[in-house]
Amino acid sequence: MYEGVVQDLIDELGRLPGVGPKSAQRIAFHLLQAEPVDVRRLADVLIEVKARVKFCSTCFNVSEDERCRICRDERRDPSVLCVVEEYKDVVAIERTREFRGRYHVLGGAISPIDGIGPDQLHVKELMPRLADGTVTEVILATDPNLEGEATATYLTRLLLPMGLRVTRLASGLPVGGDLEYADEVTLGRAFAGRRSAE
Amino acid sequence: MYEGVVQDLIDELGRLPGVGPKSAQRIAFHLLQAEPVDVRRLADVLIEVKARVKFCSTCFNVSEDERCRICRDERRDPSVLCVVEEYKDVVAIERTREFRGRYHVLGGAISPIDGIGPDQLHVKELMPRLADGTVTEVILATDPNLEGEATATYLTRLLLPMGLRVTRLASGLPVGGDLEYADEVTLGRAFAGRRSAE
Repeated sequence: MYEGVVQDLIDELGRLPGVGPKSAQRIAFHLLQAEPVDVRRLADVLIEVKARVKFCSTCFNVSEDERCRICRDERRDPSVLCVVEEYKDVVAIERTREFRGRYHVLGGAISPIDGIGPDQLHVKELMPRLADGTVTEVILATDPNLEGEATATYLTRLLLPMGLRVTRLASGLPVGGDLEYADEVTLGRAFAGRRSAE
Repeated sequence: MYEGVVQDLIDELGRLPGVGPKSAQRIAFHLLQAEPVDVRRLADVLIEVKARVKFCSTCFNVSEDERCRICRDERRDPSVLCVVEEYKDVVAIERTREFRGRYHVLGGAISPIDGIGPDQLHVKELMPRLADGTVTEVILATDPNLEGEATATYLTRLLLPMGLRVTRLASGLPVGGDLEYADEVTLGRAFAGRRSAE
């Protein structure tokens, strides 16, 4: 219905996650009226991101080099490895400044419904990293949902026989939240995981 | 927090209408994992759309030439001019195949709250198009909302003294809808605009 190249743009935008046909149209019309230099900047950064961003050959974190900043950083504790689903989880954990070990990014979580099993994740690349005995603890920091729990359970069964300490992030009440608004499962876990008051 | 160019991409995406910080992140991560050729295609179409798409010098419709397809089409009725807010309204009306005249795209609607008055719209370019007497009817097809109504009222006052026939699109029940779900204003207008049964 639209002039050729406008329709092409709407089609391309509509392929992005969370962008439906109406949003794609809205973004396209915005871009039609935007300054050419602004649209050019978006196009350039798209090209640049694909040219420059790779995945770390060791941990599969996003990296502009063969190995990522964290894997190259000699000050990081090599004995603790934190297994996460995605790059954005690395960023979230780094933001806390609580963790000084290294990461392993699985690239997703086990989800039979989406056809994702351990073979589709970077599980096989995790094993050689644990072979030489440097890593003594693996923290399974998968998402606290069905797929994340399944992934953590799978990895626990795989790693425990290797004599490693395998840990999970604590479940409980989110800080700053209201107890009465916590869902039953979270509140139940907060009870189960209660600690002695200091 | 993210690697330089990834953050740049998130920032650029976050400037698009309707794309919040979380959506921008989600789209960015999708693009990080997408095939380079797919991302390249999006970048190319962005550049192409700005290079090729102009606005018609007569009616301000989107066009790949100096004058748009509709203005160039000799079979279109030059005596009826349909005034719309945006390019997408032209597309919507063309889809009905009910209208065979020409268009004038205002580029928006009067909205004092957003600082948009007649001077920010293509109103002054409308006047010369009505000067030679070819156009005998102007259809005001602005949106049926506050800004659209204000714009239509403004244009009516401007055009009526010129001796033109000035019309508005009919208000009433949407076809395929349920009467009981129509809002009061729409239902009221449907009554006010009732016609003899054939």
